[in-house]
Amino acid sequence: MLPSPHMTRALEQAEAAAARGEVPIGAVLVQGGVVLAADSNRVIELHDPTAHAEMLVLRTAAKALGNERLDGCDLYVTLEPCAMCAAAIALARVRKVVYGAADPKGGGVDHGPRIFTQPTIHHRPEVVSGIGETRAVELLQEFFRARR
Amino acid sequence: MLPSPHMTRALEQAEAAAARGEVPIGAVLVQGGVVLAADSNRVIELHDPTAHAEMLVLRTAAKALGNERLDGCDLYVTLEPCAMCAAAIALARVRKVVYGAADPKGGGVDHGPRIFTQPTIHHRPEVVSGIGETRAVELLQEFFRARR
Repeated sequence: MLPSPHMTRALEQAEAAAARGEVPIGAVLVQGGVVLAADSNRVIELHDPTAHAEMLVLRTAAKALGNERLDGCDLYVTLEPCAMCAAAIALARVRKVVYGAADPKGGGVDHGPRIFTQPTIHHRPEVVSGIGETRAVELLQEFFRARR
Repeated sequence: MLPSPHMTRALEQAEAAAARGEVPIGAVLVQGGVVLAADSNRVIELHDPTAHAEMLVLRTAAKALGNERLDGCDLYVTLEPCAMCAAAIALARVRKVVYGAADPKGGGVDHGPRIFTQPTIHHRPEVVSGIGETRAVELLQEFFRARR
């Protein structure tokens, strides 16, 4: 499947992260076809353990909208979100999550705690996976191979 | 049990949040007896769905230390952390989490996804609960009663 324009943009963000020495994961937050935020992992740069790509776009978009709830917003991210990001996505009421590659070790959507299936969750976004998967995996493999 | 000085400070932060119209939850991040950060819920003020007290002190402390890993740091928080905060606490390698009141509906440590018990988690902090519980619950009850 060809990646959507939004996933293409998320992949470009992931590439930019790799160039900065950060784990190459990118995310884009979209409302009604308009990109509200596009960013990538900045954990090292910001000395911020929470600065995953998803968290940064959620925060930027919520600030832009002046509302902590991102109703009707869709999140595109190159890797399956971890438990922190998945829970933040639910808190923000994101409508749909589209992710590239699955993450059996660190993922929190279709692996690990499977956050959106928890009975206590307040909001369950629609989830689509595998869009742009090949390139997303390639970027991560290149990055970790170079560091071994 | 008498609350520790750090939990007392977290409770004061929770009170300050209530006075600002935010859900009254406070947190303190400590390293070697030194308070690196003390803050409370600012979701509404900052239009930030991730601005829970725990996330704010993790981020402030990591920035202060210039390191995204908070080795040897302990987190005091008035309510059981949600899944997002629990996962962030694990990512930040916090040594110990001391929380006041349990949160059967929204908690992610001893309820819901029980983040620290997940087989895929990279770090499991020590957890102590029930410190300052009575006052923590009282603050939340007063807050929600006034809003009903």
